[in-house]
Amino acid sequence: MGFDRLIEKIAEKQNPTVAGLDPKLEFIPDFIKKKAFAAQESPFKAAADSLLAFNKALIDALCDIVPAVKPQAAYYEMYGYEGMRALAETIAYAKQKNLFVITDAKRNDIGPTMEAYAAAHLGVTDINGEPYEAFGGDALTVNGYLGSDGITPLLKVCKERDKGIFVLVKTSNPSSSELQNLELAKGRTVYRQMGEMCESWGKDSPGGYGYSAVGAVVGATYPAELAELREELPHTFFLVPGYGAQGGGAKDILPAFDSDGLGGIVNSSRAIMCAYQKENCREEDFAFAARREAIRMRDEIMAEIGEIKLP
Amino acid sequence: MGFDRLIEKIAEKQNPTVAGLDPKLEFIPDFIKKKAFAAQESPFKAAADSLLAFNKALIDALCDIVPAVKPQAAYYEMYGYEGMRALAETIAYAKQKNLFVITDAKRNDIGPTMEAYAAAHLGVTDINGEPYEAFGGDALTVNGYLGSDGITPLLKVCKERDKGIFVLVKTSNPSSSELQNLELAKGRTVYRQMGEMCESWGKDSPGGYGYSAVGAVVGATYPAELAELREELPHTFFLVPGYGAQGGGAKDILPAFDSDGLGGIVNSSRAIMCAYQKENCREEDFAFAARREAIRMRDEIMAEIGEIKLP
Repeated sequence: MGFDRLIEKIAEKQNPTVAGLDPKLEFIPDFIKKKAFAAQESPFKAAADSLLAFNKALIDALCDIVPAVKPQAAYYEMYGYEGMRALAETIAYAKQKNLFVITDAKRNDIGPTMEAYAAAHLGVTDINGEPYEAFGGDALTVNGYLGSDGITPLLKVCKERDKGIFVLVKTSNPSSSELQNLELAKGRTVYRQMGEMCESWGKDSPGGYGYSAVGAVVGATYPAELAELREELPHTFFLVPGYGAQGGGAKDILPAFDSDGLGGIVNSSRAIMCAYQKENCREEDFAFAARREAIRMRDEIMAEIGEIKLP
Repeated sequence: MGFDRLIEKIAEKQNPTVAGLDPKLEFIPDFIKKKAFAAQESPFKAAADSLLAFNKALIDALCDIVPAVKPQAAYYEMYGYEGMRALAETIAYAKQKNLFVITDAKRNDIGPTMEAYAAAHLGVTDINGEPYEAFGGDALTVNGYLGSDGITPLLKVCKERDKGIFVLVKTSNPSSSELQNLELAKGRTVYRQMGEMCESWGKDSPGGYGYSAVGAVVGATYPAELAELREELPHTFFLVPGYGAQGGGAKDILPAFDSDGLGGIVNSSRAIMCAYQKENCREEDFAFAARREAIRMRDEIMAEIGEIKLP
């Protein structure tokens, strides 16, 4: 229930990090693209095949190091429906390798429409009475601006199928304060209000380790808010973006964790995917470079946390 | 610039309504599904082919009546990447029939990721130096919870390619007040704050008819808020959901319009798509029933508005 499966993988691997899979073509080694474009005339199909080959190699190199991967839907959608095929096949491959998959799609809509998104990303689609998985992630990022109606259909699927959601609370980007940090008349910020809503939405799905199926996205770039929210939202598991490229360091993300070293998972996308560019190694060795960076990140964060203990 | 192309189509057809294309399988006549599933073994592919056949017939029946269509991305995504193919082909077909296409996907993310969504839905994707349209809508619904960073990449594409966005301001669903109607310390509601942000984001893209490229989603189910926002956001064009099925009537949507009858476009999805079920006519006549309902809706709304005049 809740994020238990994710938490167990984190404890098993002693690694509270998730590798983002945001495979823009410019991040992908030439030898992969050359092969894909030689084999396939359709540009979108060849691009999608490149994405998938890149992701599979990364997953192979990372699957014993990280507990989870987080494909960012936008980087697949930009390659059209072929890109969405690469997303579906990436998710299937990662699950086959026993990774927890967080689909980062920040979906949101009114209730009946949210049922369709819940089916698409966490549940099953009914076709002539038979259930089929469209994308099949383990967790989905969502936006709570529409209130409970847009969250309730997800809670149902989370409960029935042991899935989770991460609601945007305090995002990592520079302008996140424009709305999220405004003070409400009743005396709390908008992000804090959204956080309280997460606690409330999670009430019905208590997990075995104290965290519900309703998590929150809280950026590493705002350590003060991260500390405040960890204290105020004791049952809400955090997805923490903004580490590395966006400026958050290992000390900045420490407040995400409780005294057992649980409570959050830190994302790194570009630093892992593009480690081969930074290392300036042979591009054929990109997956090894990604693995080295994932290990470095794990060790850097675990040096701060100490040990992750299941209560 | 801005929503000028949409406004001209609205004036030309004297019809400020948009037909929502939310083609769940259960809404689609059996004869279409039977044909698609007989021709195709893959359930997702057959489902997507059904969606597309349904949409094309609706578009053929509606294209001289309505100025625009609004496919809701969730109802395609739930059928996987094949569903997304149906979305892309629906958009292409609607544009071929000279309709303005609003892709209702409520996308949102941090800046660099939003560039990918902007490319996917309004712009072009660069593949080996060549530009390709992934989905190719004319406007996109988006969520502004992340502030300016998540909007700026869209504004760039809107300007370069004559497109528009609709930002969620006051949504039509029952729980929209939970966050949106909270009062801020400085004395305005969250939705009003979001509305002011729309005015500000739109400053750089003034349209020829007084409306910028940054529109807002404001539900017909909250006529008081609709009236307040129309008055306070003079350059923001409104997409108004919630008419019909969700409870908004013709008088409720009147405040969306300025004295020229401009300023908004009212959506109806299910009432048009499923008119054949309500009429209880032969399912083979579903497109005629949809056309009758679209005309009825136009006439009902135009009876309130009077005439739409280009200034």
